[in-house]
Amino acid sequence: MAAKRQLHLGAFMRPVSLHTGAWRYPGAYPDANFNFSHLKRFAQTLERAKFDAFFMADHLAVLNMPIDSLKRSHTVTSFDPLTLLPALAAVTERIGLVATASTTFDQPYHIARKFASLDHISGGRAGWNLVTTSNPDAALNFGLEDHMEHGERYRRAREFFDVVTGLWDSWADDAFIRDVDSGIYFDPDKLHVLNHKGDYLSVRGPLNIARPIQGWPVIVQAGASDAGRQIAAETAEAVFTAQSTLAAGQKFYADVKGRMEKIGRNPDHMKILPAAMVLVADSVQEAQDKRARLDSLVHYDSGLASLSIALGHDASKFDPDGPLPEIPESNASKTSRQNVIDLARKTNMTVRQLAQRLGGYSGLAFVGTPRTIADEMQEWLEQRGSDGFTVNFPYLPAGLDDFVEKVVPELQRRGIFRTEYRGATLRDHLGLPRPENQFFRSDAKPATHAAGSRS
Amino acid sequence: MAAKRQLHLGAFMRPVSLHTGAWRYPGAYPDANFNFSHLKRFAQTLERAKFDAFFMADHLAVLNMPIDSLKRSHTVTSFDPLTLLPALAAVTERIGLVATASTTFDQPYHIARKFASLDHISGGRAGWNLVTTSNPDAALNFGLEDHMEHGERYRRAREFFDVVTGLWDSWADDAFIRDVDSGIYFDPDKLHVLNHKGDYLSVRGPLNIARPIQGWPVIVQAGASDAGRQIAAETAEAVFTAQSTLAAGQKFYADVKGRMEKIGRNPDHMKILPAAMVLVADSVQEAQDKRARLDSLVHYDSGLASLSIALGHDASKFDPDGPLPEIPESNASKTSRQNVIDLARKTNMTVRQLAQRLGGYSGLAFVGTPRTIADEMQEWLEQRGSDGFTVNFPYLPAGLDDFVEKVVPELQRRGIFRTEYRGATLRDHLGLPRPENQFFRSDAKPATHAAGSRS
Repeated sequence: MAAKRQLHLGAFMRPVSLHTGAWRYPGAYPDANFNFSHLKRFAQTLERAKFDAFFMADHLAVLNMPIDSLKRSHTVTSFDPLTLLPALAAVTERIGLVATASTTFDQPYHIARKFASLDHISGGRAGWNLVTTSNPDAALNFGLEDHMEHGERYRRAREFFDVVTGLWDSWADDAFIRDVDSGIYFDPDKLHVLNHKGDYLSVRGPLNIARPIQGWPVIVQAGASDAGRQIAAETAEAVFTAQSTLAAGQKFYADVKGRMEKIGRNPDHMKILPAAMVLVADSVQEAQDKRARLDSLVHYDSGLASLSIALGHDASKFDPDGPLPEIPESNASKTSRQNVIDLARKTNMTVRQLAQRLGGYSGLAFVGTPRTIADEMQEWLEQRGSDGFTVNFPYLPAGLDDFVEKVVPELQRRGIFRTEYRGATLRDHLGLPRPENQFFRSDAKPATHAAGSRS
Repeated sequence: MAAKRQLHLGAFMRPVSLHTGAWRYPGAYPDANFNFSHLKRFAQTLERAKFDAFFMADHLAVLNMPIDSLKRSHTVTSFDPLTLLPALAAVTERIGLVATASTTFDQPYHIARKFASLDHISGGRAGWNLVTTSNPDAALNFGLEDHMEHGERYRRAREFFDVVTGLWDSWADDAFIRDVDSGIYFDPDKLHVLNHKGDYLSVRGPLNIARPIQGWPVIVQAGASDAGRQIAAETAEAVFTAQSTLAAGQKFYADVKGRMEKIGRNPDHMKILPAAMVLVADSVQEAQDKRARLDSLVHYDSGLASLSIALGHDASKFDPDGPLPEIPESNASKTSRQNVIDLARKTNMTVRQLAQRLGGYSGLAFVGTPRTIADEMQEWLEQRGSDGFTVNFPYLPAGLDDFVEKVVPELQRRGIFRTEYRGATLRDHLGLPRPENQFFRSDAKPATHAAGSRS
């Protein structure tokens, strides 16, 4: 009998909850975003539950919101991911550590060194969530007035990837012989100088750190646009994505894995992990009540702004405690408008409740008992909607603890989630091969001073 | 009775030994530069000895040496300091953590975030060794063909310092009120937008992390040139410097502290910590024998290159096992030539031994018993040659363990080194004040949207 398809689980941990009301929930740590001891506790708990990875998103600016909304947000302050994850590496042993780092405002030599260092320090547990930055406020923090346009950002990102992976391959895996008797520290024939000169980047190399333990840290991406999907198909090994229904998830899954096949990559060599908020309780009603309580902590004005945007119509004149009235046609996205209308009809939510839902968290959510949640996750897995999920927790620490104590054992009972780590590295957890060094292949003579680009 | 002047001790840990023969010494860890478990052991040992700080230097390229020397060097591979130190922060509690980061090839927003993150994660133990990078090989790793000239590098560094410290002050210390009942996370009146536009840098801000625990991480510098001393006098709180004699140390000490007084800074608010290799044994003879053995592990050809440079004369024709012959006048620095000649006359070293000394480590060294070493350190301290030392260890782990077990207790017995940490932060260890927020002074109304520069 073939082994069952296995779920892969990442935890989305920046902000520690995506839900804007989370810091006010009873028992929450309002300072979780900048208190290392809390983050250490979360990472160690996720490791006990055998999560594949702790995933940390990033922003290169304080989010651009009106100050009256911003002042209510717990996301304004957070650790730099590449500073936090080494600290977590030192207090965990097996869980993968995925940091977001942008290709738009950084240098490939810095990024290659930092991820190589993290991979060595963690014993092969690093992952790089390779993103481009489209936030014009971030541009202003890096001396740029005009923001790079979308296509250009992606072309730079693709070249950046080639340079970083080329730098990681500066040294053959067996370059460091450290022969005490002869005094030879490394074999000079196993050192490659990249000498990259491209459209956006010029980087000589070599990198001043040994090849990462995983060969390359795992490449993660989140691109949703056509260019984003294409670069993911070419380079990514895990994809974090927002898909609000199973049907949408299946379409995305088939599209990206199809693109991989078209360019000759094995589709199993990428795990697609949609974002999902999971709220578990002992009954469905209790879970829904908890969610309603959490939503009620979102400030109504902030929620109204989100609701008005989704409807394409000013919702501030509506009766907050009445049902959603008929909405005239507008220029808003028909999908987002229809989604709100469907939600209102299905749930009998008031305008206030709708506003707070949209201002809190309105993406894919599994809200129910361990059994109903495991059913939904299993359906996505078996119906090829995903290879697992990037889970976010509605509030911390209770939402995380509940998931670990109640949902994980149910997934394990069903034989679709590991009960023990089998390997040591993040590649092992995700079932990904270790890349060969492009300049020193084990089945051939070493290529000497080849061009930097792999394509 | 006035309290005795106190020594401050940093440990210079990248490379883990400066001595090029160290990795071949009996009992050494040849892989110490890239094995986290060794670095963790070193940091924890230094913390037990109550060192002020673990200091990590940096290079942004593989060092430019002929490949026949380079292949013998254990310094080609090492961790990125800002990735290593967060990991060490998680496994230590009190020791300061000083990372080198260059102002030449990085962005102030990145540097400000990373050091603020390290300061929060470590509970106020971060220090920034602010350097400029003059290595043309590094420039090639960052897309630059021509290297920035010296004066320009320093002007950029000064502005970079203003921007980073301005970003650290983005939030008042009490900005985050996190009032669960009202839903207000921070007080908008306690947020400062830097809006810096200068000659080299344009950075809007605010920083997306709370003000560091220390206000600002401790500012460390190593500048030796006139421009370097001046920027240190203006901005540094600890100085790492190479001084080969007490007389030279006294001159440097008086010069830099005099510059501080001239601009109205309290000279006690900077600790001057010359680099010193310390090799301790139970007798002076045994210590000298160990040093000779260590020097003998330096490859003769690498040593010859260093000797020839110091003499301004090709030393390869000399009899390696004979004494240093008379050297004709040359264009070499008279000081370095005379230093070598004096060393040869004083010690009767052969040409081979001289070459290996110069190719190994030829800076300030205290080689002897716990008593003779403590005598020398105390003399520097009392004669105002320094406020302590940045100690480097001849070989690891034994050289470090010997220092901790033998020299530290002798310094403590003399009452010139702490037996327990008295404070929690690196500023506490070094006796440095916590900087007030330049935009939110405790004795005045908050300045609103002041210019970015502090001067």
